[in-house]
Amino acid sequence: MTIRVTVFGENVHEQTNRVVAEIYPQGMHGCIAATLNANGMDASTVTLQQPDHGLTAEKLAATDVLIWWGHAAHGAVQDAVVDRVCDAVWGGMGMIFLHSAHFSKPFKRLMGSPCNLTWREAGERERLWVTSRNHPIASDLPEHFELEHEEMYGEPFGVPEPLETVFISWFQGGEVFRSGLTYKRGAGNVFYFRPGHETYPTYHDANVQRVICNAVRWAHNPAARIADPNDAPNTPVQQALEPIVEHGPRLHHDGDKGLR
Amino acid sequence: MTIRVTVFGENVHEQTNRVVAEIYPQGMHGCIAATLNANGMDASTVTLQQPDHGLTAEKLAATDVLIWWGHAAHGAVQDAVVDRVCDAVWGGMGMIFLHSAHFSKPFKRLMGSPCNLTWREAGERERLWVTSRNHPIASDLPEHFELEHEEMYGEPFGVPEPLETVFISWFQGGEVFRSGLTYKRGAGNVFYFRPGHETYPTYHDANVQRVICNAVRWAHNPAARIADPNDAPNTPVQQALEPIVEHGPRLHHDGDKGLR
Amino acid sequence: MTIRVTVFGENVHEQTNRVVAEIYPQGMHGCIAATLNANGMDASTVTLQQPDHGLTAEKLAATDVLIWWGHAAHGAVQDAVVDRVCDAVWGGMGMIFLHSAHFSKPFKRLMGSPCNLTWREAGERERLWVTSRNHPIASDLPEHFELEHEEMYGEPFGVPEPLETVFISWFQGGEVFRSGLTYKRGAGNVFYFRPGHETYPTYHDANVQRVICNAVRWAHNPAARIADPNDAPNTPVQQALEPIVEHGPRLHHDGDKGLR
Amino acid sequence: MTIRVTVFGENVHEQTNRVVAEIYPQGMHGCIAATLNANGMDASTVTLQQPDHGLTAEKLAATDVLIWWGHAAHGAVQDAVVDRVCDAVWGGMGMIFLHSAHFSKPFKRLMGSPCNLTWREAGERERLWVTSRNHPIASDLPEHFELEHEEMYGEPFGVPEPLETVFISWFQGGEVFRSGLTYKRGAGNVFYFRPGHETYPTYHDANVQRVICNAVRWAHNPAARIADPNDAPNTPVQQALEPIVEHGPRLHHDGDKGLR
Repeated sequence: MTIRVTVFGENVHEQTNRVVAEIYPQGMHGCIAATLNANGMDASTVTLQQPDHGLTAEKLAATDVLIWWGHAAHGAVQDAVVDRVCDAVWGGMGMIFLHSAHFSKPFKRLMGSPCNLTWREAGERERLWVTSRNHPIASDLPEHFELEHEEMYGEPFGVPEPLETVFISWFQGGEVFRSGLTYKRGAGNVFYFRPGHETYPTYHDANVQRVICNAVRWAHNPAARIADPNDAPNTPVQQALEPIVEHGPRLHHDGDKGLR
Repeated sequence: MTIRVTVFGENVHEQTNRVVAEIYPQGMHGCIAATLNANGMDASTVTLQQPDHGLTAEKLAATDVLIWWGHAAHGAVQDAVVDRVCDAVWGGMGMIFLHSAHFSKPFKRLMGSPCNLTWREAGERERLWVTSRNHPIASDLPEHFELEHEEMYGEPFGVPEPLETVFISWFQGGEVFRSGLTYKRGAGNVFYFRPGHETYPTYHDANVQRVICNAVRWAHNPAARIADPNDAPNTPVQQALEPIVEHGPRLHHDGDKGLR
Repeated sequence: MTIRVTVFGENVHEQTNRVVAEIYPQGMHGCIAATLNANGMDASTVTLQQPDHGLTAEKLAATDVLIWWGHAAHGAVQDAVVDRVCDAVWGGMGMIFLHSAHFSKPFKRLMGSPCNLTWREAGERERLWVTSRNHPIASDLPEHFELEHEEMYGEPFGVPEPLETVFISWFQGGEVFRSGLTYKRGAGNVFYFRPGHETYPTYHDANVQRVICNAVRWAHNPAARIADPNDAPNTPVQQALEPIVEHGPRLHHDGDKGLR
Repeated sequence: MTIRVTVFGENVHEQTNRVVAEIYPQGMHGCIAATLNANGMDASTVTLQQPDHGLTAEKLAATDVLIWWGHAAHGAVQDAVVDRVCDAVWGGMGMIFLHSAHFSKPFKRLMGSPCNLTWREAGERERLWVTSRNHPIASDLPEHFELEHEEMYGEPFGVPEPLETVFISWFQGGEVFRSGLTYKRGAGNVFYFRPGHETYPTYHDANVQRVICNAVRWAHNPAARIADPNDAPNTPVQQALEPIVEHGPRLHHDGDKGLR
């Protein structure tokens, strides 16, 4: 079964900054999708500028794993689309957040925490260490690898404790950062991966590409999507699994939907 | 140091339902606050109907632990107040969600997940088992205790894996539920506790009262509140802890605030 | 790639108790292995009575996932075999512990905790609830299923917080139990699954069989086994990734193996 | 209530290495205990060379929190004492492991994992970053602090995912390490803290001393110690909380202790 991946690219700096445009002539999203397609996945791209940012209900229903990169225009993402994306994750869609997507609306919504960090844009060396040996997201990677020029992100990173810490980064200027973290939200697998500042050729790096391919396979949940992941069904007394006798005052009538 | 607790009560069914009004003549929030005050804490109440639901910036700054009970009017809670409450939690305020607050806006926001469950209002027996021996929230409790008449909540409960599972409930009709769960969001300790349907006298139960008192002490973080828990400071090249030489193109200028 | 599974059966009550022998004429291990073989896996069995309990270094090297059932003779398992099994898990072998294996030597060793519980042998009803929707171990299962006659295990269960709670059991006599728990130890995936008292036909139940098949697939780590999962390599000053100048004094000489 | 702390010191290099003896004339354990006593705790020391390593049942019963430092003689620690220490932890005693105690018998037993790492003894700079803001163990600490000369420990660190990651270290030579990790085992709180190579004056550092004091207060569980943390009580049919009818057959007779 081919995994269907949608890559959301904000597509702002590619259009407005000459350096970024030269590194990523097809956009960062285009570069990432090309990598996935070259590795046996079925990847397409959507951008902020499209109606619904390209993330219609139909598109999400046909997406096994959604990848998100954004930086300059987090505020321009429509809240209705954020709701739709979170529902899809809760129903079982995998989701991967890259780099500055730590401050994107869907990441903040799924984490329930501030998602902040410290940062410095100096093109310094980053070295990523695998902290979870033989984790599927670290498959075929060396125990550490380097990105010679990257933006620094430093701890404390304002996220909840993850299920697993897969990578931790060392920075030349003296900071550290948990740069690969797994979460589950509803039925959906979520992965955050740090590298990818737009003024460096990070998504052309073979190790970074391998991480993204591995993460897509890890995040993919082959089970059927849950139709309404927010449903809170009433199970009436008459259908209780063990016989019970109803006692005392009720707020709700049979068939009520419950309060929200 | 006396712990300052604020109890938010939705205060709807107390005003509109005779059964609820008779069980809780001072409101559910009033009953809970009285318990806390009788146990050495400094508790006050606020309600949905007050301006800002009583949860002004000043009130939150003077609150060590916030308790939340709501059911009929989750949608009436203002988003601006939800933001303020989450910021306070991220800055270090403790927070306890009771029963139907599983569908409250601040709980859903802090969990990042659907928070749904199955339910039945039949006044059946609930038995809570301690699953984490000697946990501070289970202090001075027996290994299990019963509530003779409660609403049923059943798994699957749509929340992230907790830090710790403190209680699991058995229901007479055949269901189970993780009824005591701890989380950390930012610097704030968060606890969800299941019992407390408004048509039963649950908050008059001695064991339930003990859990709430224990949870307040557990959730209280004596450290000074973080002033801006969303701050993402830039650390300039010149102030790097290790000497580095700036490399290559920059998006940001010195003193920039970063993009959101 | 066919998954190679080894099923360890204690094989005591099958030989000494007529009831058990009639339910499991090929042994409990034989029943479990037959299920796996019928579902596309390559399963074989070993028993306590064999030399090295059948778990030689060669056998473990050829095992992707090891399943363990024991009850009457935990103390008869050789410590050297326990060490070998734990090393295999740490190197990446998957491992599934069934029912009374909660008190087996390898489970206690891998958990680092007492692994105790309460129990009652009365042939009462157990109902297992899925608590993690769409988890691969719950694939193709209903939201709950029943075993009409089982031994009761009750909380508190003396294990560390799991990575994920997949099932919780309801018992007719009033108890609850976390009956499906995932862990990672070294590079190895570990799953505990509660049902399977030897005097009931539990391993003939279709839902139980599905859980075991799912769990084998989940536990299987296709990465190459780590050769020495206990290795603690020295990285000499001369080979440091960043240039550093040694600052004395030293306990160790170049090439030392480190102290244990 | 004054917290009673016992500091176990291996006391080998203090007796055999002149450098260590000069830095710690009262032993490393003596230095740590003096710090605790100066901060309002009631600390005493025991050493490997004493009968039972000083860790008799009486001593453990009078210990709220046990601190462990060892390096050269892990193998000389008696297994019976390790069992006794683990039982005390499971019953509620707090325990803190320092530096090279990562390879001590009780740490390996409590973790259930290889506990290995990479290392280099070059006296390089270590910088510890707080990753969990306002965590009690990080109380009154800056967001990062440095140790100018320390042994390097590098990832991957062979331990289970912790409850919380409190510190991560940056090393001058290019490695990172999760240097402050919390766990719960049975009713006992466990903390691992990385710094403390014996040839450097680490335990004279004010920030390190503050971490150790904070960790003792965090690890202390004021609840009464559980008498037998391994007990697995039978709850007979006649005493079931809900009425059930026994359904045969049975392996056990009333009053049996269960099998181990």
